[in-house]
Amino acid sequence: MALNPRPLPKVILFGLLPVASWFVVRPLLDPVPSLPALHASLGFSIFAFVATLYLVPALGPTFVKANLKGKDLLKTYYTPIPESLGLVCASIYILFLILFIPFAFSNTIIRFAKAPQHHEGIDVIEFPHYQLSVYLSSLLSLLMATMLGFLDDVFDIRWRHKLPIPIIASVPLLMVYFAERGNTNVVVPLPFRFIFGTLVNLGPLYYTYMALLSTFCTNSINILAGINGSEVSQALIIAVSVILNDLLYLPWPVDFRIPLYLLGNRTELGVGGVWHAGMSYGSRELVERHLFSLYFMLPLVSVCAGFLYHNWYPARVFPGDTLCYVTGMAFAVVGIQAHFSKTLLLFFIPQVFNFLLSCPQLFGLVPCPRHRVPRFEPETNLLYPSKTLFQKSPSSLTTSILRIFSILGLTELTIHPTTGAILESTNLTILNFFLVRFGPMSEKKLVKVLIWSQVAGSVLAFTVRYGLAGLLYDGDRR
Amino acid sequence: MALNPRPLPKVILFGLLPVASWFVVRPLLDPVPSLPALHASLGFSIFAFVATLYLVPALGPTFVKANLKGKDLLKTYYTPIPESLGLVCASIYILFLILFIPFAFSNTIIRFAKAPQHHEGIDVIEFPHYQLSVYLSSLLSLLMATMLGFLDDVFDIRWRHKLPIPIIASVPLLMVYFAERGNTNVVVPLPFRFIFGTLVNLGPLYYTYMALLSTFCTNSINILAGINGSEVSQALIIAVSVILNDLLYLPWPVDFRIPLYLLGNRTELGVGGVWHAGMSYGSRELVERHLFSLYFMLPLVSVCAGFLYHNWYPARVFPGDTLCYVTGMAFAVVGIQAHFSKTLLLFFIPQVFNFLLSCPQLFGLVPCPRHRVPRFEPETNLLYPSKTLFQKSPSSLTTSILRIFSILGLTELTIHPTTGAILESTNLTILNFFLVRFGPMSEKKLVKVLIWSQVAGSVLAFTVRYGLAGLLYDGDRR
Repeated sequence: MALNPRPLPKVILFGLLPVASWFVVRPLLDPVPSLPALHASLGFSIFAFVATLYLVPALGPTFVKANLKGKDLLKTYYTPIPESLGLVCASIYILFLILFIPFAFSNTIIRFAKAPQHHEGIDVIEFPHYQLSVYLSSLLSLLMATMLGFLDDVFDIRWRHKLPIPIIASVPLLMVYFAERGNTNVVVPLPFRFIFGTLVNLGPLYYTYMALLSTFCTNSINILAGINGSEVSQALIIAVSVILNDLLYLPWPVDFRIPLYLLGNRTELGVGGVWHAGMSYGSRELVERHLFSLYFMLPLVSVCAGFLYHNWYPARVFPGDTLCYVTGMAFAVVGIQAHFSKTLLLFFIPQVFNFLLSCPQLFGLVPCPRHRVPRFEPETNLLYPSKTLFQKSPSSLTTSILRIFSILGLTELTIHPTTGAILESTNLTILNFFLVRFGPMSEKKLVKVLIWSQVAGSVLAFTVRYGLAGLLYDGDRR
Repeated sequence: MALNPRPLPKVILFGLLPVASWFVVRPLLDPVPSLPALHASLGFSIFAFVATLYLVPALGPTFVKANLKGKDLLKTYYTPIPESLGLVCASIYILFLILFIPFAFSNTIIRFAKAPQHHEGIDVIEFPHYQLSVYLSSLLSLLMATMLGFLDDVFDIRWRHKLPIPIIASVPLLMVYFAERGNTNVVVPLPFRFIFGTLVNLGPLYYTYMALLSTFCTNSINILAGINGSEVSQALIIAVSVILNDLLYLPWPVDFRIPLYLLGNRTELGVGGVWHAGMSYGSRELVERHLFSLYFMLPLVSVCAGFLYHNWYPARVFPGDTLCYVTGMAFAVVGIQAHFSKTLLLFFIPQVFNFLLSCPQLFGLVPCPRHRVPRFEPETNLLYPSKTLFQKSPSSLTTSILRIFSILGLTELTIHPTTGAILESTNLTILNFFLVRFGPMSEKKLVKVLIWSQVAGSVLAFTVRYGLAGLLYDGDRR
């Protein structure tokens, strides 16, 4: 069976180009909009979307020729599918972010250009060097993640060799955080204040936390993989959630109130008015941080959406580790640089669940096969939970963990009828968990279940962040 | 014929590790040396040297397995040689540069740590954000060059597709240059001052010049390739030349004078004394710029030297495009960021010569085969100039260019005995030029000739820079 690239609706795409151009050009026209760089970012994102839609199928054969290809494990056909096309997404993403640099600093550039050559008095215009180093260190981390992902695709690096690399990739981020004399104080939740007081200074521990955050974000998407569209749809929904969260902090021309008291929060949230709007409550710094996050998330959504079109069941291309690493690092970058790492982690609820569920296999308590993807049965065209076999009978620790998991409905065990020893267990991933809970289903349905669980996770995250957080913290915390 | 990795002298290597550690630890001990970060940089460079020596042969088989291998065109044996091991050099280089960040800013970090928590009066310690963004943008450009080089090795990108990428890779460099309100004035040489005046503001043209500089540096080393050790030895000698030039600007504890008047310069050069030394004449900014250059050049020399050990005739590993791109970009970075691009270009004399010589083939006047390396004859074990065949008789422009080249001794032509039309010409590279001038020689001898021509080029460069420049410019110019 030949698998042709999915056709591209040319009319819509060519219609998008003038729209994108308008958004890029708009900030140059009078009256200048209140957030000119955001217009340009939106324009660039549309260009990135079109570029991804076109380049991914166009470059597919090149990847196959370079031996970057794989068989789809959950299909009946053996057509080689181009692998690690996430590299194309990552390249488009990073190139557009680089070309965007002058726009991100357009305010200052215009003031530089307009400033008279010879200053008098104290009219000194400073370039926002700090913001530039934040931006550059973010690009650096993204590029290192791309590199690492692609090397992983080419060389198949062993996981203990690649584990330290995201930590090294985060050194520039941490250095910039330090250069800002970044806050390492943590606000203690209300119930623990009688022990620790209001603020605890974590010091170097806070840097460790940030380094681990990038390791977690890059790897957690990677281990929740295996079915068509799973990696990129996770990234897409997390990115959209981050964008929705950012929008809450922007100055909106309209004025409205969100009835937060319904969620249990004691404060009300008014949105509207320039520099005095949303959750920023007039803090220019907060607005700038969330704008920064938007500049990185908007093009990410574009490349993910463009890629998903070709990666959707039945997949024409595979993302490879490259896509997982670069998207994960993008989230770590905005979480750290825009200072909302706790909120960010809330959007990773399915990934955290998958990671915790996987721990017995990751740490060697339960045998971990090379692939833990669900098992495909060609007769029914359905996916079933895949199983891991115990060569020797498991230790008592493993047995008790698996029994608890089984009682909680997280896994299905095959027990020896006479000795009661565990013979088999379903692989401990969220995908197999869905199949255990909801029964066998098609690959297309399973990825939809995954997507809805991710959406549900984000809804829960917003509820916790803006509702329940009011019970644990006083005032408004990030 | 099996080609075993070249043996490593373990005693020397293990002896180097304590020396390296001492250099890294030394800045932490009292009395702190006057240039602490330079000590650490030297220590890191020794570590990078040892790491390259060990990792290059260790990772060779991994590259062969990933289909990154090639036959040595100028040998009798067919053993596959691991290709694009320059990636290992580039990774070690960039990782050490990242780990070095805290040391480069150690002065400020120590002052941050010692500063009292609550400031009084106007005692504000500023982090050198600008220097940090210079450093980060340099890393970003290096990483993009590495990425591009490796993609070129994996996908064999067509040259017109890859040409714009170094330009995009230099956007962060240019942005940082702009952020510093970088000088775009050029000092006019004395003979032209009656036309242009003393200073000419090139404005945007200056940015174009810098973008083209990175394109030239990355590609010029790449086209001077083809024999064992050629790429990496060029990079090594240019890096050493840049280091020698940097050392002239450092504060030396000794005091001596270089008799520049012998070279025709009207000034004398005194070297010695802290902040009032060498060519810096007390300018702290100049000292810092050349320290920056040293931080990037010292580890480059280490990885190149380590790699050359395995790449020397008969080569056990090939560098691939990755090495050419990353070294070329490293030179562009220091040339732009430390503001000595003109001096830098002087160290590229053999590359400029090779580029000018290659122009008729690069621009399609003379047919350009896939490989222009010299021709190997197994019987004599010598290299002879390789030739390009004219399928149809060349245009009159091509004929006249080739005849001029032939008169200058740059090429050898085969002329039709009756019509006088050019039938063949030697390929227009510096390697074939050497073979035309000095007759056939072995590969090992040819690479030595190349090395000596590079050394001679650097000697000429220093003469021009510190001698003849005095005739064209007044005072001291960079």
